Amino acid sequence: MTTPLPFSAILFDAYGTLLDLSFIAEKADSAFPGHGAPLSTLWRDKQLNYTWLRTISRNYADFATVTGEALDYSIERLGLTAPRQKRDELLAAYWSLPSFPEVPATLAHLRQKGVRLGILSNGTPAMLEAAIQSSGLDGLFDDVLSVDAAGCYKTASAAYQLGPDRLNLAPERILFVSSNGWDICGATWFGYRTFWVNRAGHPPERLGVSPDGTGASLADLMPLFV
Amino acid sequence: MTTPLPFSAILFDAYGTLLDLSFIAEKADSAFPGHGAPLSTLWRDKQLNYTWLRTISRNYADFATVTGEALDYSIERLGLTAPRQKRDELLAAYWSLPSFPEVPATLAHLRQKGVRLGILSNGTPAMLEAAIQSSGLDGLFDDVLSVDAAGCYKTASAAYQLGPDRLNLAPERILFVSSNGWDICGATWFGYRTFWVNRAGHPPERLGVSPDGTGASLADLMPLFV
Repeated sequence: MTTPLPFSAILFDAYGTLLDLSFIAEKADSAFPGHGAPLSTLWRDKQLNYTWLRTISRNYADFATVTGEALDYSIERLGLTAPRQKRDELLAAYWSLPSFPEVPATLAHLRQKGVRLGILSNGTPAMLEAAIQSSGLDGLFDDVLSVDAAGCYKTASAAYQLGPDRLNLAPERILFVSSNGWDICGATWFGYRTFWVNRAGHPPERLGVSPDGTGASLADLMPLFV
Repeated sequence: MTTPLPFSAILFDAYGTLLDLSFIAEKADSAFPGHGAPLSTLWRDKQLNYTWLRTISRNYADFATVTGEALDYSIERLGLTAPRQKRDELLAAYWSLPSFPEVPATLAHLRQKGVRLGILSNGTPAMLEAAIQSSGLDGLFDDVLSVDAAGCYKTASAAYQLGPDRLNLAPERILFVSSNGWDICGATWFGYRTFWVNRAGHPPERLGVSPDGTGASLADLMPLFV
């Protein structure tokens, strides 16, 4: 992204992009000592798989439901046992996530530059509201969009279309930012300009499209808006 | 499935259901000693993820392409390096898969009972033809259906609909058999009667639907057709 376009708005993915899911792994390891890493990895994989399958088959259930169902599967798959209370406490971690360290200052910088900031997330409105509060990001966003309004998950066009509809801008005038490679591919297919925050240092997904820009943390957005 | 319905036709998933993907893990371990298990697991996960994402976003590429792209990603993600020839040889394993041991006798039994047998698979027609030959299953199927004709992957309705269209039967008159829990959920949502060959002893997927029957191997189908 050597020649930044005059983006007037940025839409951020939430989970893994603004909000630090390693918090989930820590909580999982407290709940199931020694199993935090495999449990949180399987849980996240299942959660995403379920969103995709429900979207393809047009059997939407909201992200709170899907996240709970993915947790139930993962606990059983790993041969763990959990009383309902322990399971519910672990699930509740999604409502109390912290942000990554550089996020508040980066968002504040971008707001100062007059950029309209929003979230476009799979999370339910209630999940997003809670996590924005818990992460100290309240007041930084003009728009908080949940795919729940579309009744399907990313990478469906109807989910991404919430952005242009709300912002009254063409997709190519909006920069979509995500740490999730699959989300970046979906958003690029849809027509957004895209910036991949490759926090994990993963290879690019092989889906035939590339982001317009890539960085290692959200702070790498700042040089685009000087 | 205590009261078997009078199914006149069975459609089988291919990969993991009839065809043994542990062959892939062996080939992967020969190509990358010590990395066969993680490479084959990641490769399979990516392969499926890519089919779902391409289906949701209406960016179909055929299963040979997707399988190769998933392999490229997985090799890079695990920090392995492969000359093109080694990568191509590993990919070619999909064209030369063996069947699970009980498959030929089970299929022969079902045919003897007058049941119409078919495959409904994500694989391309050429991949399926090659694997049916390599696994010694040629001549056992009345219908070999590739989702390639629909231009999308399971669990899309348009992919499953190839079965009723070809067989000229309502979905509830067809028994769909798969070892893949997500495929079973998709087929159940679609309207097939379903039998889950739970080879791996995994928990049921938490997607709000259940198969009509479950077994540990394909041989568990035989009591339904006595």
